[in-house]
Amino acid sequence: LDYIKNPISGLSFLTICRLLLRFTLYFLLVIIFAMAGEGSYFFEPFTESFGRRLKVEKFYYQGKTKYQFVQCFYNKFLGKVLFLDEKIQSAQIDEYIYHESLVHPALVTHPSPQSILVIGGGDGGALKEILRYPIEHACLVEIDQQVIDVSKEYFPWLLPSIEDERTELIIADGSEFIEEADKKFDIVFIDSSDPTGPSASLHEKDFYKKLKKCLNLEGIVVLQAGSPFYHLESIKKKDAFLKKLFKNVCFYTSPVPTYPGGSWCFVFLSDEVQPLKIKGR
Amino acid sequence: LDYIKNPISGLSFLTICRLLLRFTLYFLLVIIFAMAGEGSYFFEPFTESFGRRLKVEKFYYQGKTKYQFVQCFYNKFLGKVLFLDEKIQSAQIDEYIYHESLVHPALVTHPSPQSILVIGGGDGGALKEILRYPIEHACLVEIDQQVIDVSKEYFPWLLPSIEDERTELIIADGSEFIEEADKKFDIVFIDSSDPTGPSASLHEKDFYKKLKKCLNLEGIVVLQAGSPFYHLESIKKKDAFLKKLFKNVCFYTSPVPTYPGGSWCFVFLSDEVQPLKIKGR
Repeated sequence: LDYIKNPISGLSFLTICRLLLRFTLYFLLVIIFAMAGEGSYFFEPFTESFGRRLKVEKFYYQGKTKYQFVQCFYNKFLGKVLFLDEKIQSAQIDEYIYHESLVHPALVTHPSPQSILVIGGGDGGALKEILRYPIEHACLVEIDQQVIDVSKEYFPWLLPSIEDERTELIIADGSEFIEEADKKFDIVFIDSSDPTGPSASLHEKDFYKKLKKCLNLEGIVVLQAGSPFYHLESIKKKDAFLKKLFKNVCFYTSPVPTYPGGSWCFVFLSDEVQPLKIKGR
Repeated sequence: LDYIKNPISGLSFLTICRLLLRFTLYFLLVIIFAMAGEGSYFFEPFTESFGRRLKVEKFYYQGKTKYQFVQCFYNKFLGKVLFLDEKIQSAQIDEYIYHESLVHPALVTHPSPQSILVIGGGDGGALKEILRYPIEHACLVEIDQQVIDVSKEYFPWLLPSIEDERTELIIADGSEFIEEADKKFDIVFIDSSDPTGPSASLHEKDFYKKLKKCLNLEGIVVLQAGSPFYHLESIKKKDAFLKKLFKNVCFYTSPVPTYPGGSWCFVFLSDEVQPLKIKGR
């Protein structure tokens, strides 16, 4: 056979073409495998220089809403996990620690809690804990219908909580809701996401000023305030302005293993109730 | 020019070869870049399905010793970090929380601590805290000379701790050391790594049985017992056998943000000292 010869290697043009084609296919395969591997992992940044990598067993939902990026998937160790804008909100394995820590201190210290407001908390974990008490009315104000819909499907506690006759579900901006609210509440829980994104206004002084007008006498507000390790600056800022608005400002922490840093900060606000002076009723 | 024509596309053989070569080079570049990117990240598995990814600004040391894989690097957020067998041991940002929690409860509850033994703890963090007290003698028994050498260079507190005249440094297996020890101690700290690898024997019942013989009257042992979130089974196992050996077995936790799960478990062991009954001396 008389192929054109490569003067250097002595290989025919056709052989070179075949080799190149084989290499190309091989590299394509390597890249496809690498991408398939990457696709089954989820990376959550904690800071610019470090974060967490989770293996995704099954993607339940992923979509951009008007407000944020909603993702829900299954991880072998954590169970079902909900992410908003790439930040963990709820993991099946320890959501109860976060939600119990948010809800119970206020409900056991208020002398007679009847009407409760939750701002945020579309995953339903806080509502589930609140409904354990003999309250009259629980109002959940969540900005993003999609968070409700995804949680309804994958977090089995949300649907019965919403269907409870004491529950009122409102899809609205929490900040606008309290401006126009004609009701007053005994306890308000701010179960927000981080200060970036749709929750930004829920972290500002103005919001808490307005919120005071929605509180009954002996009213309590409890908010999540982030990680004492990663969000110390924002906690200090909150401490400064909250002390100007409320007589009792009590920070407390609770271990939430799946949240960045593993412990989480909450703030208990009240003018009338002093949680540290309450002894077994 | 009269090249051999491809009957389907009409492209010349040479053009096809050039295209293939270009593609091959392009994919090679993609792979090289991907690998270079991966190389500057460090992955620490917490479970089979999830873990932490750290950006490595500068690798200080990496090497396999007779006992384990030792790695030390700099991360922007955590500072200098020491890894043994891919598990974090010390991060500059919060090593003090771990070491203070390990050391101070025993040193403030023992009526007159004079001779102290540390098994493990080659990074020197525990020793640094112990030497704050007016003790007579601190003995550090570390199995791996390389951990000492790396820490001496990158953890500025180790060298002065070792050079302190009260310090005795012994490179030996902790388990063998206590079998042959002719001294007794007031307090023993087990600052081990995880139950896999060179520390395995430090997690067994036999070790604590032998350890009792090295304790003075009113002696105290404190050990790190892992994460209550990730290592619950091993904690339960320890709880069972330790209660058969010591009269007072007190588990306590402390927040260590950079450790998996963010809170860490310690055990306080004693026959004579009851830490929960001690009031300000």
